[in-house]
Amino acid sequence: MSVLVVGSTALDSIKTPWRENPRLLGGSASHAAVAASFFAPVKLVGIVGEDFPKRYLQLYRRHGVDLEGLRVAAGKTFHWAGEYEVNMNNRRTLKTELGVFETFTPELPEKYRRTPFVLLANIAPALQHRVLDQMRRPRLVVADTMDLWLNIALNDLLKLLRRIDVFVLNDSEARQLTKEDNVIKAAEKIHRLGPKYVIVKKGEHGAILSSTSGLFLAPAFPLNEVVDPTGAGDSFVGGLIGYLASRKGPIDSNLRRGMIYGSVVASFCCQGFGLMRTTKITREAIEQRVRELEKLVRF
Amino acid sequence: MSVLVVGSTALDSIKTPWRENPRLLGGSASHAAVAASFFAPVKLVGIVGEDFPKRYLQLYRRHGVDLEGLRVAAGKTFHWAGEYEVNMNNRRTLKTELGVFETFTPELPEKYRRTPFVLLANIAPALQHRVLDQMRRPRLVVADTMDLWLNIALNDLLKLLRRIDVFVLNDSEARQLTKEDNVIKAAEKIHRLGPKYVIVKKGEHGAILSSTSGLFLAPAFPLNEVVDPTGAGDSFVGGLIGYLASRKGPIDSNLRRGMIYGSVVASFCCQGFGLMRTTKITREAIEQRVRELEKLVRF
Repeated sequence: MSVLVVGSTALDSIKTPWRENPRLLGGSASHAAVAASFFAPVKLVGIVGEDFPKRYLQLYRRHGVDLEGLRVAAGKTFHWAGEYEVNMNNRRTLKTELGVFETFTPELPEKYRRTPFVLLANIAPALQHRVLDQMRRPRLVVADTMDLWLNIALNDLLKLLRRIDVFVLNDSEARQLTKEDNVIKAAEKIHRLGPKYVIVKKGEHGAILSSTSGLFLAPAFPLNEVVDPTGAGDSFVGGLIGYLASRKGPIDSNLRRGMIYGSVVASFCCQGFGLMRTTKITREAIEQRVRELEKLVRF
Repeated sequence: MSVLVVGSTALDSIKTPWRENPRLLGGSASHAAVAASFFAPVKLVGIVGEDFPKRYLQLYRRHGVDLEGLRVAAGKTFHWAGEYEVNMNNRRTLKTELGVFETFTPELPEKYRRTPFVLLANIAPALQHRVLDQMRRPRLVVADTMDLWLNIALNDLLKLLRRIDVFVLNDSEARQLTKEDNVIKAAEKIHRLGPKYVIVKKGEHGAILSSTSGLFLAPAFPLNEVVDPTGAGDSFVGGLIGYLASRKGPIDSNLRRGMIYGSVVASFCCQGFGLMRTTKITREAIEQRVRELEKLVRF
């Protein structure tokens, strides 16, 4: 089955202590769409400006991403510039130029509206709502977010939590949202806000799934070098929903492995700037890492 | 087979945002010895003052801990006082009174010297050396440490690393020791300093084993409430070596499960002040949590 992905489509200029790469293909929807594309057909909803490089459109297409929902508008593409510190965990934003994103209102092509799997990748909650308003009875809705929306759009986000199945956020966001320091307790509180499934991402420490059938501790694939972690969280949710869309049977019985596949795609993402490594993934390389992860946690 | 444990034997006054408990039984050797006692007979090497409460000696004895190596000296028992912040990860030391520990020189009773499993729990590296000097061909030597020794006794510690089999330290210590931010790379560097097995503890995020047969990612048992994390790391190594001493076959094939047992004992430790919860553990409760952990990571 296919996956609809909405989120940001951007140009990222990324600086690490060792290298600098200007105007890479980035944005939550780009990372998530490519990650999902290894498992299922993807439909993209987003907006770019007239300056958006043709080669990036070709890149989406090479991954079979349907671009009918990607609007090319007069103006500039959303541009983010950021810099990582030596430890690769702390980053600071150098520049945010919203460009055409400032006035973006997602309008779904008719053929998108019955897509069974919906990923509301990181984007303003009001836009996530607007996409859901246009969908007809999706089978599964997964939403990601970021601290910015907790700060400036909390009410929209809280309303969204009552409309989705899987909520994905990182540990610091879970603490901020619930005012609860313990992550397990924070997940319990988030269930009460709506979502049946809560996934707390912990970066290199993996992710925790909380659901009515209990907890699942998903490991991160261990890397001895991280080139650029930008988009790892988006790759995780993209790989997760792509895998789920490719499987038969109830969500509950596929969610754990889905997180493992998401984790593996995210690990590739960290091994290159922007989407450079992700776009070179083969399905066999993914399966290989999944088998390795199985061995890494066996006891 | 039996386990020799050397380390600090102390009185801990622990304050958390919710409660305060003065003069609890504490110290790395106390936590490690009790943790190991659920699996194997334990011999303790340490020193206490004349003020050391009789009920704590009885507590050791109830766990079958051999006290021939515990010296009772004129003076006061090592007393540590500390305070945890709300998030239970940051703690600050309020008081450190070394007392009889200041002049401690471990002297092993003759019958201790052929103990096959040796745990050099956190204590000055010079004292860890002194214990090893008196041992006759132990089967396995495990050493723990803390940041203090990296700061004030690095040379002693580096010499120790060439004499031990398993080195256990936490992630920030691994970074400090190797000047390497990536934990996997840090472990690789530590191997070159001597130890065949390197275990990096990551608190609530579990622990990583690095060995010639690759990595193992051990989960921490998830807790929705941490009462007092003091001694959790000591309980982890104690449970680990106790389990190893109880098993036949090569170390390599028992180390992964050993870490799981250590992790489980550490989780109980966090659920009470000092040793309050640990001393109430039953072997069946340990097995139960090990089975739960198996389910929590299965995919």
